[in-house]
Amino acid sequence: MNPLFQEKLQVIGLGLAGFSDNLRQAGGEVLQLEWVPPAQGDAAANWQLANLFNCPQIEQANETALQRYLDAQPVLVGIAPAHELIPAMAEGQRRILHSGPPIAWADMCGPVQGAIAGAIVFEGWADDVSAAMALAAQGGIALEPCHHYAATGPMAGIISPSMPLWVVENQTHGNRAFCNLNEGLGKVLRFGANSPEVLNRLRWMGEVLAPTIAQALAVCGEIALKPLMAQALQMGDEVHNRNTAASGLFFKRIAPAIAGLPDAAAVLEFIAANDHFFLNLSMAACKAMLDAAANVPGSSMVTVMARNGVNFGIRLSGTGERWFQAPANPVNGLFFPGYGVEDAAADLGDSAITETAGVGGFAMAAAPAIVKFVGGTPADALNYSREMMEITLTQHPVFTLPSLNFMGSGCGIDARKVVDRGILPVINTGIAHKQAGVGQIGAGVTTAPLACFIEALAALADTLE
Amino acid sequence: MNPLFQEKLQVIGLGLAGFSDNLRQAGGEVLQLEWVPPAQGDAAANWQLANLFNCPQIEQANETALQRYLDAQPVLVGIAPAHELIPAMAEGQRRILHSGPPIAWADMCGPVQGAIAGAIVFEGWADDVSAAMALAAQGGIALEPCHHYAATGPMAGIISPSMPLWVVENQTHGNRAFCNLNEGLGKVLRFGANSPEVLNRLRWMGEVLAPTIAQALAVCGEIALKPLMAQALQMGDEVHNRNTAASGLFFKRIAPAIAGLPDAAAVLEFIAANDHFFLNLSMAACKAMLDAAANVPGSSMVTVMARNGVNFGIRLSGTGERWFQAPANPVNGLFFPGYGVEDAAADLGDSAITETAGVGGFAMAAAPAIVKFVGGTPADALNYSREMMEITLTQHPVFTLPSLNFMGSGCGIDARKVVDRGILPVINTGIAHKQAGVGQIGAGVTTAPLACFIEALAALADTLE
Repeated sequence: MNPLFQEKLQVIGLGLAGFSDNLRQAGGEVLQLEWVPPAQGDAAANWQLANLFNCPQIEQANETALQRYLDAQPVLVGIAPAHELIPAMAEGQRRILHSGPPIAWADMCGPVQGAIAGAIVFEGWADDVSAAMALAAQGGIALEPCHHYAATGPMAGIISPSMPLWVVENQTHGNRAFCNLNEGLGKVLRFGANSPEVLNRLRWMGEVLAPTIAQALAVCGEIALKPLMAQALQMGDEVHNRNTAASGLFFKRIAPAIAGLPDAAAVLEFIAANDHFFLNLSMAACKAMLDAAANVPGSSMVTVMARNGVNFGIRLSGTGERWFQAPANPVNGLFFPGYGVEDAAADLGDSAITETAGVGGFAMAAAPAIVKFVGGTPADALNYSREMMEITLTQHPVFTLPSLNFMGSGCGIDARKVVDRGILPVINTGIAHKQAGVGQIGAGVTTAPLACFIEALAALADTLE
Repeated sequence: MNPLFQEKLQVIGLGLAGFSDNLRQAGGEVLQLEWVPPAQGDAAANWQLANLFNCPQIEQANETALQRYLDAQPVLVGIAPAHELIPAMAEGQRRILHSGPPIAWADMCGPVQGAIAGAIVFEGWADDVSAAMALAAQGGIALEPCHHYAATGPMAGIISPSMPLWVVENQTHGNRAFCNLNEGLGKVLRFGANSPEVLNRLRWMGEVLAPTIAQALAVCGEIALKPLMAQALQMGDEVHNRNTAASGLFFKRIAPAIAGLPDAAAVLEFIAANDHFFLNLSMAACKAMLDAAANVPGSSMVTVMARNGVNFGIRLSGTGERWFQAPANPVNGLFFPGYGVEDAAADLGDSAITETAGVGGFAMAAAPAIVKFVGGTPADALNYSREMMEITLTQHPVFTLPSLNFMGSGCGIDARKVVDRGILPVINTGIAHKQAGVGQIGAGVTTAPLACFIEALAALADTLE
């Protein structure tokens, strides 16, 4: 009992923990909340935030954007080389797409430079990797983000004109999204490896794998991806870093149609051997759903999160194609034997489009076994999913989490809530070696940096009527 | 405070809850345990139980049996017709195997009679179902449990000489186990359906499916089943009533080898369309592992639990081939539209071999999504797995449960613990219509009846030195 009062002193502490300690020593009962001031305590940003939370235009715009995202029905309709799908990559154009927000060659990290050099050799624009590096450094190749062409790519995210792309159509609104094909693990272009083995595999993927799948799709028909992703969430995937079930479900759909084709055995073996094969389909599906929600004036819903290995960039629906960037956070994870955090490139890749769509790290509760790959415990996985519900507009009606009693995964990231609550979007990711040519060295969990959300909200405020 | 004592009265209640209520009203603090007297309060059985728990021979025997079970490595080595694999079913022998403990034709439930009649027509021993029923009723066909021939079959569990069987070899100890092939859901023989559609499917399975898989296995080689089952537990299966992931993993292993064969597309489509396809492989694997643990004198470890639609039967390692039976418990579950518990046959099938091996209901924590099929909540699924750890000898080192922080599933049922704790083995199961010819009408959860464990322990006590 506190001697000054008849009743026991009961306090909720919001500030420094030391204050609460003093109260406890004096006999008080204190519940210390884990609270931090919004917008890192910036007073002007806080005033702005208060206004943004009291803005009917934003509420209405978010409702519209969210509904468009929820209504989207991404369907795999085909597969074709990039030069056929993207006019800016048509015959004769020397353009290569990369992950994340725009970045100049000189500023790129090792694995992205390595992957671009590999793609230049793959296209026959240079004879070897060092000539390719020189060509790129001279500005001989146009380099642009995948996201500028409704495309995405995991890790380095390299798309060159000859590479086959998945074509995913949102059949509700008609927009299309693209993603390259998954090469497997180990020494692969997307982690910056560019040896002849890597380029030969890419050639086989373009000449055998993609045409075979295209023929099979013509037999088995279009494949709706949202139900497949939803089912995979019931089977321990979060469809970003764990795609074991989704890859198997896709394989079951396509294998009977592949069976009669000339290269059936090799193609089926390649797909069956890669538990990450579905990742690129998941990304294209997420991109197709989120593009449907883009460009709603006033909306604070996040439509893109992407990393180029140096900077993390986001886009809001209400600010259209504008990027808001901040230095990428480091990745806290598990490393393959012989590697450590000192070898790691910064957070990299367009695959955070999955988290932007409410799966990946947001749906980690569905995938307790992923902690063996990215670190932590199954309890952490549940907590990540619960936390993400605090910064999103709704819980997904189709992407449900069995371990949380089939609650929907938090989706529709509201930039206002991120800044207000100081809860950063969590992202499951692979870790690339910081040098070109090495490849993947681990996997882990990281977060989006707060600064780009603060900047995006300031820009959104400027657009309001 | 209780006025008689200086300190607050704190009581642990074991008996009637009413006593605890009185103590609480008098100001006491009571923790009421959910305790029931062992062996349903039977004094003689309790004395015996106390002796069995203090018996070094049983401890040693259980250690041996359990280790043999844990060391077993079940591997799919082939597929062949029953008449080639089981001498008692060779050419000219009119023998049909069924699920559960032995039972006379007249005592069998509707779906088992229906399935046997279907198999008689399938074998050409009668022209139609009614002639087949008459033939069986006259004793014209030898009817025996699958378990008498190292075999198992789900639901009615019918194996006739022409039917193909999976051949699973325990490569540690050399014993083999068999199971028939899964027909899919709906109107199928194992649920008592026997129409021409059902028998034609069985013919196709014998003439096309099985020979194609046999050829594919010759190409892709033997398939180790324990790692595959362990992986499926990380993907939301419990490998009894949920085999979606395991079927997909098996499909991925076999599809590239099937691709080049004449009936590849039809065979791949059949397997891909059936999420329960792996069940029969899971059962054969469990049988192979448990047979390795059989016949260890003195062991109270359960090696078989099986139901014939009337009685539930178990075998202990220490009592060899002797069956201990009790009436099967009803199944509490979800029914397909138009059906209810009044339409249901009693608990049926050899598939409880999965629970005997520590998966199925014992591993339900791995499969939260199964509650949509068998009823209950994901929290129930966790509780079932936790409870089963109370009646088993150990937690499986390979069959782990992600949602329970990768704890091993409880395995090696100790009949002593079942009787002592009054915790009944939980079983996930399909529900057949009680009449022949209808098929599956639901799925649910049931338990093994206590009486057969009490009887088995009495028999075990008689064998002790």
